[in-house]
Amino acid sequence: MSPRRRLVAVCGESDPRTSLADLAFELGRGIAERDAVLICGGLTGVMEHAARGARSAGGLTIGLLPGDDPHDANPYIDLAIPTGLGHARNAVLARSDGVVALGGGLGTLSEIALALRNGRPAIGIQTWRFDRDARVEPELPTAANPKDALDWLFARMARPS
Amino acid sequence: MSPRRRLVAVCGESDPRTSLADLAFELGRGIAERDAVLICGGLTGVMEHAARGARSAGGLTIGLLPGDDPHDANPYIDLAIPTGLGHARNAVLARSDGVVALGGGLGTLSEIALALRNGRPAIGIQTWRFDRDARVEPELPTAANPKDALDWLFARMARPS
Amino acid sequence: MSPRRRLVAVCGESDPRTSLADLAFELGRGIAERDAVLICGGLTGVMEHAARGARSAGGLTIGLLPGDDPHDANPYIDLAIPTGLGHARNAVLARSDGVVALGGGLGTLSEIALALRNGRPAIGIQTWRFDRDARVEPELPTAANPKDALDWLFARMARPS
Amino acid sequence: MSPRRRLVAVCGESDPRTSLADLAFELGRGIAERDAVLICGGLTGVMEHAARGARSAGGLTIGLLPGDDPHDANPYIDLAIPTGLGHARNAVLARSDGVVALGGGLGTLSEIALALRNGRPAIGIQTWRFDRDARVEPELPTAANPKDALDWLFARMARPS
Repeated sequence: MSPRRRLVAVCGESDPRTSLADLAFELGRGIAERDAVLICGGLTGVMEHAARGARSAGGLTIGLLPGDDPHDANPYIDLAIPTGLGHARNAVLARSDGVVALGGGLGTLSEIALALRNGRPAIGIQTWRFDRDARVEPELPTAANPKDALDWLFARMARPS
Repeated sequence: MSPRRRLVAVCGESDPRTSLADLAFELGRGIAERDAVLICGGLTGVMEHAARGARSAGGLTIGLLPGDDPHDANPYIDLAIPTGLGHARNAVLARSDGVVALGGGLGTLSEIALALRNGRPAIGIQTWRFDRDARVEPELPTAANPKDALDWLFARMARPS
Repeated sequence: MSPRRRLVAVCGESDPRTSLADLAFELGRGIAERDAVLICGGLTGVMEHAARGARSAGGLTIGLLPGDDPHDANPYIDLAIPTGLGHARNAVLARSDGVVALGGGLGTLSEIALALRNGRPAIGIQTWRFDRDARVEPELPTAANPKDALDWLFARMARPS
Repeated sequence: MSPRRRLVAVCGESDPRTSLADLAFELGRGIAERDAVLICGGLTGVMEHAARGARSAGGLTIGLLPGDDPHDANPYIDLAIPTGLGHARNAVLARSDGVVALGGGLGTLSEIALALRNGRPAIGIQTWRFDRDARVEPELPTAANPKDALDWLFARMARPS
């Protein structure tokens, strides 16, 4: 029987004028090339460019929308899930099999924090740095580019089963 | 560009010994044959048999799990989304493009109620009947079998776009 | 040490012209007189009249709002919690120590279903009737008036501890 | 009519052996003395010590629990709301009228991020520092002690109305 497929979340800024469009495209493309499914918030900016990249390699894309209307999804989303949960849907994204943060605003920071809290493999590119004194929590590893990020991530994600 | 795909939720009892296994299989198969994606709670019983039916026709299946662990998904789920939301994930299922209730317990009743509340096309097979005096809310139409249910449903779901 | 207080959820229609205003007031008043805290969706209609009743007896009221803005709460809410969860907040109300449904639309039906599913004491007044063949799930008891409903409910709610 | 009361969220580590117990107590006490209601995750550590402080000044305390059981609340919680939402309840806490982070792990970091994202007044004491290049998002102000934090916070929270 064909196994369950791995879901990799891409978190990042929704600004349509993001300077990270090319990196997001490359990231989404790399996820599809590694035969995983891209899941994201389904909106504009990094989310849209990553979905476009995944599509360019024949990959599948899921948009976990904060609102009620599936039409809010960007045009590269295959499967639009309108959660109606607002930011609480970030907690769902943070339970994906793997998480990559690319740039991003405060919503992305919340997703990184929860992904690490959940013990999910997570890595960042040009994203938030955070620390506190007497820290005991795991740190977010960083990568210089999408390829390195995905190499690191896929080495740590459980095989589909 | 390929359009977003339509998601049809199948709600029903999780009891693995459900007497509705054959109907659930037929329902899932019909959803896939109509080129829609099956979304369900991802667990056992009606959810599992419907996912098995969708798979048998080459369809895609999503499991919106109540818990934290993707391994809770039944073996016919392609895309397991562990929401960690408990029953609150029912409210997400109730925002799918269309909803079919087949049998089901009280969780299914909550999903039917919210799907109608959201104005989503929804139909039932051998499921809950409910009413109140001075009712102004829409009723749940019923069908005798999966084919009739899906004919009714797909005539009312918006075309993918 | 003073114990945790019991929360009784009142679910019902938001229609400001509801014919159940007097019953809702009496219900809220009875909850406060029994030294419990009223929790509800925080909006208009049955929710507002019940909160007004609880206030009239010096009781405390919580509004678990579906939206983001605490100012959506009706003026009889002491503690407004803007959940931003939409209908998913119904699943939270359904985990209260006890639940009373008074009239109500489809959102109320979802709350009744989940309260019974959670094994919480729940009772209805002039609300939904629901059934299915081969039913194994618990039924919703009904009462003719708020006093009878609360007598039944408080006999079954755990003492605060 | 008595106005709605202001809710101040206290976020912080759940470790029962936290070194921040005295600061948490002082913080909870200060919230109650300013006639606001303390809301927190309802568990141990900073949450428990803050609730104990609020109680010591006659204040009211709400615990927004991640799980299903109200008995998970610490003994200083007056109003236990078992959300069943897991970490998604962090998004609800982040919509409180004001937010103070005291120490804290990754869950706290997610709450800080969402509170700032929501435009709620938020301030930190001995908690996470975070930054990114080309940042456009608001920063988290910090205070040396609970009194300074609350002076800053209450000057910015809207009056109850």
